[in-house]
Order: sequence, then structure tokens, then C-alpha cells
Amino acid sequence: SAPQDLDLEILKTIMGQLEASRIRENLRELSSEPHLATSLRDEALVQLLLQRWRDPVSGLDVAEASEYEVLLSFPSQEQPNIVEVVDPTGNVLHSCLQNEENITGEQAGPDVVPPYAAYAPPGTPQGLLVYANRGTEEDFKELQAQGIRLEGTIALTRYGGAGRGAKAVNAAKYGVAGVLVYTDPADINDGQSLPNETFPNSWRLPPSGVERGSYFEYFGDPLTPYLPAHHSSFRLDLVNVSGFPPIPAQPIGFQDAKYLLCNLDGPSAPAAWQGALGCDYKLGPGFLPNGNLTDSQVRVSVHNQLELRNSSNVLGMIRGAVEPDRYVLYGNHRDSWVHGAVDPSSGTAVLLELSRVLGTLLKKGTWRPRRSIVFASWGAEEFGLIGSTEFTEEFFSKLQERTVAYINVDISVFGIGVVRSPGPSDLSIYDNWIKHFNRSSSVYGLIPSLGSLGAGSDYAPFIHFLGISSMDIAYTYDREFFSKLQERTVAYINVDISVFANATFRAQGTPPVQSVIFSATKEVRSPGPSDLSIYDNWIKHFNRSSSVYGLIPSLGSLGAGSDYAPFIHFLGISSMDIAYTYDRSKTSARIYPTYHTAFDTFDYVDKFVDPGFSSHQAVARTAGNVLLRLSDSFFLPLNVSDYSETLRSFLQAAQRDLGDLLKQHSISLGPLVTAVEKFEAAAASLDQRKSALQAGSPDPLQVRMLNDQLMLLERTFLNPRAFPEERYYSHVLWAPRTGSVATFPGLANACSKASNTDPGSEAWAEVQRQLSIVVVAVEGAAATLRPVADL
Amino acid sequence: SAPQDLDLEILKTIMGQLEASRIRENLRELSSEPHLATSLRDEALVQLLLQRWRDPVSGLDVAEASEYEVLLSFPSQEQPNIVEVVDPTGNVLHSCLQNEENITGEQAGPDVVPPYAAYAPPGTPQGLLVYANRGTEEDFKELQAQGIRLEGTIALTRYGGAGRGAKAVNAAKYGVAGVLVYTDPADINDGQSLPNETFPNSWRLPPSGVERGSYFEYFGDPLTPYLPAHHSSFRLDLVNVSGFPPIPAQPIGFQDAKYLLCNLDGPSAPAAWQGALGCDYKLGPGFLPNGNLTDSQVRVSVHNQLELRNSSNVLGMIRGAVEPDRYVLYGNHRDSWVHGAVDPSSGTAVLLELSRVLGTLLKKGTWRPRRSIVFASWGAEEFGLIGSTEFTEEFFSKLQERTVAYINVDISVFGIGVVRSPGPSDLSIYDNWIKHFNRSSSVYGLIPSLGSLGAGSDYAPFIHFLGISSMDIAYTYDREFFSKLQERTVAYINVDISVFANATFRAQGTPPVQSVIFSATKEVRSPGPSDLSIYDNWIKHFNRSSSVYGLIPSLGSLGAGSDYAPFIHFLGISSMDIAYTYDRSKTSARIYPTYHTAFDTFDYVDKFVDPGFSSHQAVARTAGNVLLRLSDSFFLPLNVSDYSETLRSFLQAAQRDLGDLLKQHSISLGPLVTAVEKFEAAAASLDQRKSALQAGSPDPLQVRMLNDQLMLLERTFLNPRAFPEERYYSHVLWAPRTGSVATFPGLANACSKASNTDPGSEAWAEVQRQLSIVVVAVEGAAATLRPVADL
Ligand SMILES: [Ca+2]
Ligand SMILES: [Ca+2]
Ligand SMILES: [Zn+2]
Ligand SMILES: [Zn+2]
Ligand SMILES: [Zn+2]
Ligand SMILES: [Zn+2]
Repeated sequence: SAPQDLDLEILKTIMGQLEASRIRENLRELSSEPHLATSLRDEALVQLLLQRWRDPVSGLDVAEASEYEVLLSFPSQEQPNIVEVVDPTGNVLHSCLQNEENITGEQAGPDVVPPYAAYAPPGTPQGLLVYANRGTEEDFKELQAQGIRLEGTIALTRYGGAGRGAKAVNAAKYGVAGVLVYTDPADINDGQSLPNETFPNSWRLPPSGVERGSYFEYFGDPLTPYLPAHHSSFRLDLVNVSGFPPIPAQPIGFQDAKYLLCNLDGPSAPAAWQGALGCDYKLGPGFLPNGNLTDSQVRVSVHNQLELRNSSNVLGMIRGAVEPDRYVLYGNHRDSWVHGAVDPSSGTAVLLELSRVLGTLLKKGTWRPRRSIVFASWGAEEFGLIGSTEFTEEFFSKLQERTVAYINVDISVFGIGVVRSPGPSDLSIYDNWIKHFNRSSSVYGLIPSLGSLGAGSDYAPFIHFLGISSMDIAYTYDREFFSKLQERTVAYINVDISVFANATFRAQGTPPVQSVIFSATKEVRSPGPSDLSIYDNWIKHFNRSSSVYGLIPSLGSLGAGSDYAPFIHFLGISSMDIAYTYDRSKTSARIYPTYHTAFDTFDYVDKFVDPGFSSHQAVARTAGNVLLRLSDSFFLPLNVSDYSETLRSFLQAAQRDLGDLLKQHSISLGPLVTAVEKFEAAAASLDQRKSALQAGSPDPLQVRMLNDQLMLLERTFLNPRAFPEERYYSHVLWAPRTGSVATFPGLANACSKASNTDPGSEAWAEVQRQLSIVVVAVEGAAATLRPVADL
Repeated sequence: SAPQDLDLEILKTIMGQLEASRIRENLRELSSEPHLATSLRDEALVQLLLQRWRDPVSGLDVAEASEYEVLLSFPSQEQPNIVEVVDPTGNVLHSCLQNEENITGEQAGPDVVPPYAAYAPPGTPQGLLVYANRGTEEDFKELQAQGIRLEGTIALTRYGGAGRGAKAVNAAKYGVAGVLVYTDPADINDGQSLPNETFPNSWRLPPSGVERGSYFEYFGDPLTPYLPAHHSSFRLDLVNVSGFPPIPAQPIGFQDAKYLLCNLDGPSAPAAWQGALGCDYKLGPGFLPNGNLTDSQVRVSVHNQLELRNSSNVLGMIRGAVEPDRYVLYGNHRDSWVHGAVDPSSGTAVLLELSRVLGTLLKKGTWRPRRSIVFASWGAEEFGLIGSTEFTEEFFSKLQERTVAYINVDISVFGIGVVRSPGPSDLSIYDNWIKHFNRSSSVYGLIPSLGSLGAGSDYAPFIHFLGISSMDIAYTYDREFFSKLQERTVAYINVDISVFANATFRAQGTPPVQSVIFSATKEVRSPGPSDLSIYDNWIKHFNRSSSVYGLIPSLGSLGAGSDYAPFIHFLGISSMDIAYTYDRSKTSARIYPTYHTAFDTFDYVDKFVDPGFSSHQAVARTAGNVLLRLSDSFFLPLNVSDYSETLRSFLQAAQRDLGDLLKQHSISLGPLVTAVEKFEAAAASLDQRKSALQAGSPDPLQVRMLNDQLMLLERTFLNPRAFPEERYYSHVLWAPRTGSVATFPGLANACSKASNTDPGSEAWAEVQRQLSIVVVAVEGAAATLRPVADL
């Protein structure tokens, strides 16, 4: 058959068929019970995915589950983790909550894993409490500078500013015996913490809420670095495992943190360390004299256990019609900490709707993509991106040779930015509405009827909250969205807010995927009252000035926050992560407040994060559009020349901020300048060749050859020997940057370490080596883009 | 244009146009002067290659030279290296030769680099002499067992059994202060060493001959591991460079070795250590009492200097007509130690003839290959495969993604196996022949005329020597070969031998290239009297019994003896090395006797190695056939299922020789059995799909997809983390094997190290890790071969 480019009619059809109501129902089912990695419910969801992807009407070509035997960490059921204040005679004066408050009836039960720090070692350290801010090295140095003796203390830290496990690692360096980690209302709730200001009355975190999480430094199964965790695979001896916290750690809620922190003695904490617990934060060590807790210490009893468990990935594939050996991967993790409605099930709900629509067309025979599409549901992500990493270790070669791009949709919708607490009248308005306009539904229960909704004053705030102007209802609003809304059990709290359910699109990715994300976001209408595209709405919230394009939306860079990490860092595959997020001018929340807590439930999403699921639908449409473009476009929509801007920006930052320092050590950036120039020229030349091919009638091999150059560019930036101390990180542009200069991470980090050393030191040799590594990579990248028959 | 398979008529045309006489003239020019890496003559040869490859009639599409700034090692011109025997008062009793005897007028002059051990450090150690056989660790242990104190000694070792540098490394571990390395006539001359038994009277090495060589442990430029040696590249500090010998070393000829060794005192050497110097080898330490050298010591004065030099590669390309982004590489090094007629110029001479024939067809417009052909002339190979390694470091990504195979033709013809020395009558017969039947030629000088050669008795031995029976001349012999012979200045020494000029083809390679080499060798007539193909002749000399094919020629495995090393070990590219070699039933020579000496000259080749250049022509025809098949076949002639036999053989060796030992440590080979079975099934299935495609009318993308699976299989066996202590070695099947069991090298080496350790030791953990690494690689290889749209 003759080569076919992307069919825009099919694209529109697909986007049009993605239903918000089905996403909502997916989410209800996925998040109906806690599905911690390898739990019975997690395994049940494996079967659910297989069933969906094998459905005769809407299934894929093939679906399989595969297991890895991986090392996980769980709290002991017999011995719960306990944080206590004990007096000198051993009496327990205070015992912190072992579980979150069962506010909605979903925070209790055997399936709700108590809050804990996964991979923190067991132990029962006891000592004077100190407050260590975020637990960075600088924070501990500040404590020492304040004359505080840290040996044998228990450090109370707050989330943010350093990785979870890093807080314990840093603490241990200063002799701290144990670490507590809490979530400060200043960081997550815009300072609010009263019951009527928090869930279920707003999206904010209740005081008993505790963020769980992995405290493992690396990603992948801890026992099998670089090998897939098959039953028979070599496993490290536990004594040889690195990356676990060296001392016990335990997370707590701000309810308990307030009790501890607001009773601390010692100097006042620096201004930047002050939070929103309603007291002057002191540093300790120990509690106030003449108080309830005088002379008392904190005892942290951690009984976490390591267990080998079988964790499953589920993979589904739509075989490509023309180039089945070119894969477009779309993935998200399946495992949660508790109900996981936002994380990860908002992503899984979208994934399932997208695969349903594509599967239906596939089964009808009306569509098959040019390239293969692989859907993945990764296991045990919350413990350290385990499922995806093991998969990349198992199929390293074929993935690296054949994968066009990886699309990650984890938390698909982050939530709203709430400006102030709802008043009593707000609740009554909604209840009143339900009373007057309800109708029964066997599917959704009691819901308001919107059949004759007018612009009356009683309904205006509700409609306003949904981002629908009254004028839209009668005449212009999307009827599909409106009819879906009619099928909802939706509890809306009418608040006087200037922000709407989810403000804007957020994307992270490598430069070559920028253009396809822009194309997609220009074709999807933004949820909310305006007629803006997602792109136009995005540019208003996050933008940058590009020397090539002018003002454009700003793409974030990829760290290791979700399953894209092994794809970009280990395999060098063009990757992206997309979501819808809140307006950061309306809230300073570090992340949606119920992240990794027992309050991340369906009701939380349904009431506060995305009433009506229009943002979920928008994410599905955008992700689907990107997926289709990557799988069906004749020429891969990977704009490799967008790397020119990144390279130039990194180069300029190095010249500006490191140039003089390097010159003092006789290190020239000249070769890097030349390499970037070569890349720019090669990329521009490739763009011209691509345009010429697109204008003509190229044969399939000509297209394949050029597409291979586009696909494989990312691999040229890999060097498995660049960062021998960094597990899995091989990408010379995106490895973790610890140095402050926004340039190539190897160079930045090496300069940061060398800046206080003598000329001729090993550290300055490493600067030169890292510079050469980058030069070779950029020159190799240019060589990959040049005409293939050039020497 | 419609896809075209290999044109067999063009193939025959190409093979028919490869002329022995032009190869001979290439060789005469290439070897007319010493061309040590980076010497003026080496640079002149760079220009020669560029000129040839840019020739308007027979040139290629493009030719370029590229320089690397690399660390080489040379003897000092001001202070020559000297090996002396000094008496207790400091008198020099004996001084070894500083140069080889100028027998033919070509062994002297400023361009002849004196014998030395490249990269051996300068120093002037002096001590009692000991004889250490081949300088292996076992040899030094034997000396200790014999009660010989090694501290401060000078060790005399012979070439063979251990790498050059390894002799010095091993010696240093036992306190030896300096190492001498000589070539024993037993190892290279079948025991012959008299002047009338050696060159120029036979192919054997004269007593003054010294083998030069690199004593660097690794390959690639010593200062830039993993980085191309550009001017601005990061270079290691010399203190941080590893791989150089830790003590001074110097090679000497057996003339000097005899003087030293036959005067040694001490116990007799073991029987296996005895050589052919005509005396009872003793171990030392020190010389015989009451002799010329009583109480004397040996002083080794080494003044080698390290220098950064610019060394060039020359690359030429014929652009592919259909898939220019698939490269077939054909390479050889250009640099020699002295004249280098055999090594490397016999290979370069063939390369130039092949590129001339292909270039001529290209310029005429009668042919252009499907895939791109790249010819390479590597610089500084003799110092450690520097040119090729730097090239692979520079273009790592695009080579790994695009290279179909690498063909290496270094020493293309190794020489004859001479059974006994010529007598005086032999010489006179040839001279007599020249006198009676000469004619002038402006090209070749005085040569015999063969116009009316009959079967007379005076000529029978000559014809016999050439492998031509008298009956052939008149009636059946290849007229082309005969007419070429008429154009020779050939000095033939008639000897009563049962072996002919070059007995057989020799090939080393990875299993996928076996089939294309077999196909090619079946189509080329063997040089010599028979009507056998090269294949049929080869199977008589080197064969093995294949479970799949029955009796077949035996392919050697690839070490690091020439420029294929970085291609197979570092990049995982299917590689081969081909040559014509002598009959090992007629000689036990370790290598052709003048290897790396000043006697490796044009006359040596012309008179003894390949009179008439029929073996060179055969190599050119075979290499050309292989090159054409790889560049022009519709389906790549890489038979991946031939890896099944290798894997099965490695598995069986492990089961047989390691099974019980592993079982004792609860290590099961079960997963490896399963992995090999998966590979076998996947490979068989792929062969079936290939046959089905070949039977039908596949579209270009279907062929490309399958060819990608064939091309990229080799890469699946790469793991850059498998052997962290081995520079560049990443191939889990072909890394150096130090263990004795003929199985996977990682497993073999790990078991060898673990066998004397306790259960549960780190060494046994490494065995398990290496086993898992192999299992993952074989499973990944199977996954690469399975249908691309399988999960
Ligand atoms: Ca693993
Ligand atoms: Ca190098
Ligand atoms: Zn997540
Ligand atoms: Zn999470
Ligand atoms: Zn060579
Ligand atoms: Zn050589």
C-alpha cells in the first residue's frame, strides 16, 4: 500500500470519542480500593487491564502481564511504626498518630497502609528533638553554626528541598539518630489548616494527612541494578545494597508535627525556616523547660520490613501497519500508596479511555497506526520506578533501537488552586441545588438535573466555578460536555474564586518532542470558560522567550519523578510527561495537597480536582493527539533542531558563569562552541532536507532513513561512562545537576566540586574530562544529523 | 527504482578485474620505505591514498583524511637503547646489537627504527640475568619454586604465551628490574638459524632479526580512553595512565639471546622451556663461573620517549544507491614498524586494488552498491590499534546504528611453510633460468620469459614450487594467471618442498559472517595446482564438525590482534579478519618469521611469501566477494542462526566443565539453558520468515525491518557494565577469556577466580552476576530476533 500520512479526520474522530464520563468511571473503579504495589487489589487491576485490552470490541492486538521479583519495603503489621515523646523515666507523654483520621470512611481498614518511609531501616532511636528545616546539608550546617550538637538527636524535617532519603543521608552525616518528616501547611495548604479549611471541605490536606513515599535514593529494584529482576537473576547481598537511608525515618502529619515543633526549646529558627503551624519555630535541641514535655526525648520506633514480592507490568500493543518495528510507548504506573485517585489513577483512567477509543477503531478495521503503539501499566513505581526500570533492563537493546518516543501520563490532573475557604452558604447553595433538581441514576446515584438550567442567581456561582459563563449555557457551550455533566454525582462547593478547575497544561520533555506537544495543544480546546486552545491557555501561565520562536509555552525538563526516567536517562529515548495543573499564582502548594496520603480518593478528584472531568478529557485528547502524531505521521514529528536552542542556552550559561573560572585553569570552551555550531548547522541542514523530501514524493526508505536520524538523535547524548557514580544516568544533557550553573550537568557538577580546589587537582582534570565528554557527544549528535553518506 | 539484489555478473566482473600484478606494484610502492606511524613516509602514504581515492577514473565518491593527536613511544635518536653485559668493575664485556644486520641493504638508514618495546619506560636497570621462558605468571612461579631469587634481576623471556607488555607486568610482580624479550628459532624458524637457512635464502628470520611491538596493555590512544584524541580532548595525566609496562623492556634477536642464554648458570630449564639455540637452557641467575661472563650482570639501558604526534586515518566512501545509511566497512592499518611489506602493506595493496576496480565501475556508471561502502586506512595500529579505536570513539553512535559489518584485511598473506633449507643448486637453477629466458621490462626490470616454457627438467622444480603441474601449462591452466606471471621479476628458490606458496585461507569472525565468507570462498579458485575452491582447500586445512552443517571450515574467534577489535568489542559490529596463511603441518612458526622486523620487505614477499601474488589476488577476490555480498544483497547475508551453535557450544562446555562446581554453590544453569533455547527458537523462526519473504515480493520496509534485526543482533551481546576492569571489552561472548573452560568469558573468568574461594564469597557472587549478565544478553538477543510486533 502507498505510504499514508496522519489522517486528520481520524485524529478528530479519536479526540471526539474520548469521553469524560468514561474517564470518571474508570477512575471510580481504579481508585475504589487502595492498590499498593503487589497487594491483592493491585493484582486485580492487572486482570482488569488485561480484560480491557483483550476486549473483543475495544481491545488491542495483544496484551500480556509480566512479573518481576523485586525488593519492596512495608511497615510491620504486628509492630506498627510509632513516634513517641518519652519522659526520663520512660513514660510515654505523647504518641503520634499511627494512621490518618478516618474522615470520609476511606482512611481506615486493613488495605490502608499506615504512613511510613519505604526502605527506611528498622530501629528505635531515641534522642532530643531538633528542627532541621528541609534536611539539606546546608540546613544541618546551619544548626551546627547555631551551636546545636546533633549527635544522637532526632531531626524533624519538612518535605521539600531535598529528596526524601537524602534527608536521612544528610542527617546521618551529622550523627543524627533518626529523622521525622512532615508536611508543613505553609508548603502545601497555603497556610490553611483548620478542619473547615481542609478536605472534605476543600482540596487542602487535613492535619492528620501524611505523605508516604520511597526513601530509596535510586530507581529500579534495589537488588538488581542493571539486570531485570527475574526469579533467577543475580541479587546483591543486602550488605552490598546502596541507596537506603542509613538511619530510621518516619513521616508524620502536621497535626503531630505542630505538637512537637511548637514545644521545642532553643534558638528561633531562621526566617526562611518558619512555617505555618502557628508558633515561633525553634531549633531545639529538646523541649521547653516548664512545659508538658520538659526533659523528654523523642523515640522513633520503625519496624519496616524488606520483602521480595512479585510485581507485574501489563503491556498492550497495537501492531503498526507499515513499520511495526518502530514503537511509540505510552505508559503510567498502576500502583498507589492508598486509593491513589490522583496518583496514579487519574493517569490510568485516561490511558484506559484512550486505549478503548483506539481499540474500538482497530476492531472495526477503520484504523491501524503506521507504527506500533505500546501501552504500559508499570508496577511498583512508588517504590522507585521499579516496573519501568526492570522493563528497560530486560529489553534494553530492542527498546533503544526501535522506540520513537515515550509518553508518560502519571498524575494527569493535579487539581485546583483554592484561594479562600468556602463559607457555610457555599455548601447550602449546592445542597439546595441538588434538592431542587435531582434525579436518580442507577449509575451515579443522586445528581442534580441540569435539564432546564438557566442563568438564575442561585446557579451562577456554580456555573462560574465550573468555568462556564451563563451565556455559554443557553447558546454556545459544548453540548457533549454539558450532557456528560448531567450524569454526575457531583458535590460542588461554591467558592468565590478567581481560578478554575485546573488552570493549565504542564509538560516536561526533551526538546525534540516540543513541536508535537505544541501541535497537539493547539488542536484541543482548553477546559474552562474561554475559547482558548490548551496551547494559548498554557502560554499565559508558563512561557519563555525563544530566540527561534518568540514567546512560547515553557517545557519542563525531565528528572526522575515518574516512569519516563529510565527511558530518557538509561535508554536515551525522546520522552515526555504531560498533565493538567493548578494556577500557581493562586496557590503555592508544592504539589496537590493530598499527594501520597489516604485522602487521595475519588471524591477528592470528583469534588475538587476536576468536577466534570473536563481536564481529564483535555489531557486524554492532548495525549491522544500526541500519540497519533507520533504513530501515524509519515515523517516523525520530532524536531531535532529544537535541541540547538538548548545547546546554545547551556553554552551561553557556561560562557557567562564559568568562562572566567575555566580560563583561569587554562580550560577553553572553544571546542564546545565549535561543537554547538556544528550541531546547529547539521540540524538546520537536516530540516532543509526534510522539507525538500516532504515537498517531493520520497520513497519509503528515504523517509525511514531520515526518521532514523530523528529517532536516534537522543541516543547520541548517552554516555554510560560519563557519570560512573550515578546509577542509570547516562544522558549528558539531562543527568542530575548539583552545580548551580544552568549548563551541561557534567560540567556544572565538576566545576562546582573543583571550585575550591587547587589548579592541577584531580577535580580540575574531571572538569576537563566532562567538557570533552560533552564536546564528543555534541559532535557525535551533529554527525548523526548530517547527510548519512557524508564521512 | 525497483529493489535489486546482488548482480552475480557484476560480482564475477569485479573478481575478474582484480589483478595480481597491480597488487604487486601497490606493494612495491607501499613498502618501498619504512612507514612508521606519523613518519614522513606514513604521511606521504596518506596523500597516496587520497590521490588514489580521488582519482577521476578509478576513485571513490569522497575521500578524507582526519588527524588525531596521540601519544606514541619512540626510541631516542640521541641515546640508543643498549643491552650490555658488564663486569663487576663496569667494563662492557658484550654489547647486544642495536640494529639488525643490513643483509639486503634495507635494514639500515635513518628511517629504520631500531628495535624497541614501545611504551616501555626509560630506565637503566642492571642485575643478574634469569631465563623466564615466556614470562607468564606460571613461569615466574616456576623460577621461585626452583629457588631462584628474582629481586633485582633482568629476565630474559621469549615471545609467545603472554602479551608483550604482560611479560613486564608479570616480571615486576616478582621484583624483576628489567625484561628482555627475544624470538627463539624453535618458535619461528622451525629450529633453523644458519645464514643459508634464513632470509634472504629462505623465509626464515635471520639471527639479528628483532620483533618490535607495542607493550601497551590496552588499545586506543593511552591518554584518551573512551574519548577521541582531538587536540582539545581531555588527556589523562601521565601518572594516571594505566597499561604501560612498569619496568624497562627491550627486545633482542636470537643471535644476542644465544650469547646470553647459552652462558647462563643455574639449574637446567624444564624441558618445555628448552628452545633451539643449540645449548642446554639454564635458568640463572647469572652467568657460568670460569667463563667469559663470570660475575657479570646485564644492564638494560632504555631511553624510550613518549611523544604526542598527529596520526591520520584516511577514509573513502562509495555512497549507497538505496540505503546509504547502512555502512559496510573495509579497513586495514597503514602504518608499519619498518618496511612492513607483509604487515600491513599486503593488506593495503589488496585494499587499493579492490577500491580501484570498484571505483572504475563507479566512475563508468555501471555499478553503485545498495549500501554505502567505506574504505579505511587506519593510523598508528602498531602502537595499539589507535586509528581505528579513536575513529570508533568519535563516531560511536552513528557507527553502532548504521554499520552492517566490518571487514579487516591486515596481513593478507602470511607466507609459506618451508620445510628445509635450499641448497646451492636451488639458487643456480633460478639464476640459470633468468639467464636463459630473460627479457627486459621497463616496469619490472629483468624477469624470466615464460613464452615457450615446456615441461623440461630444468623448469619442473620451479613450476612445482609454484604449484603448477607441468600438464597444466600446456592445456588447462588459468591463462590469466600465467600471463600475469610473465610480467614478474620473481626470484624463485627451488626447494624440495611438499608445501606450496600459502596453503590455505584463514578467517576469524563472529558467527553471523560465517555464511557470507563460505559463499565467497566457494566462488574463488584456490591458488595452487588443484581445481579446488578456496572453501574446499580451507576445509582440508582447518575444519570442524558442525551439528548443523557437518564438516565445515573452522572460523577463528576475534581477539585484539588488529583493527577489528574496537568494532566487535566496543561497538558490537559483526566483524571479520581474512588472510591467506601457511600450512601448519609443514611449519610450526608462531607467525611469519620476519613479523615486525626489518626483514619484512617487498623482496621477502616477492620471493618467499607469494611469488606471482596469486594468494594476494585470492584474498582480494574473496574480500571483494564478501564486500559485494554485504553491500549489495537485498537481504543482508548475516546468518544470525549460526549464533545458535556458538551459544549451544558455550552452554555445553559450561554444563560439562562447570556444572558440578556451580551446583555445589547452588548456582543453576537452568535459566541459561532456557535463554539459549529461546534464542534457538527465535533464530529458527526468523530464518523461516526470511525465507518466506524471499519467496514472495516483499516491500522495501519489510526487508529493511528484517535486515535491521540481522544487523543489530550483535549489539544485543554488548554490555558496557559487564567487565568494568576491561577497557573497551563489552561483548559478553567475545571478551578475553582467562579461565580455561571454553564457555562464556564472564562466567569462565569468574569461576576461575572463585574456584579457590569459600562459598558465599564475593567471588561467587560475581559468578552469579556474570551468569545473569549472559542470561539477560541471550534473552535480549532472542527478543531482538522475534517478530517485531511481539511483546
Ligand atoms: Ca533491576
Ligand atoms: Ca581515545
Ligand atoms: Zn505517580
Ligand atoms: Zn506517586
Ligand atoms: Zn598489522
Ligand atoms: Zn603488526
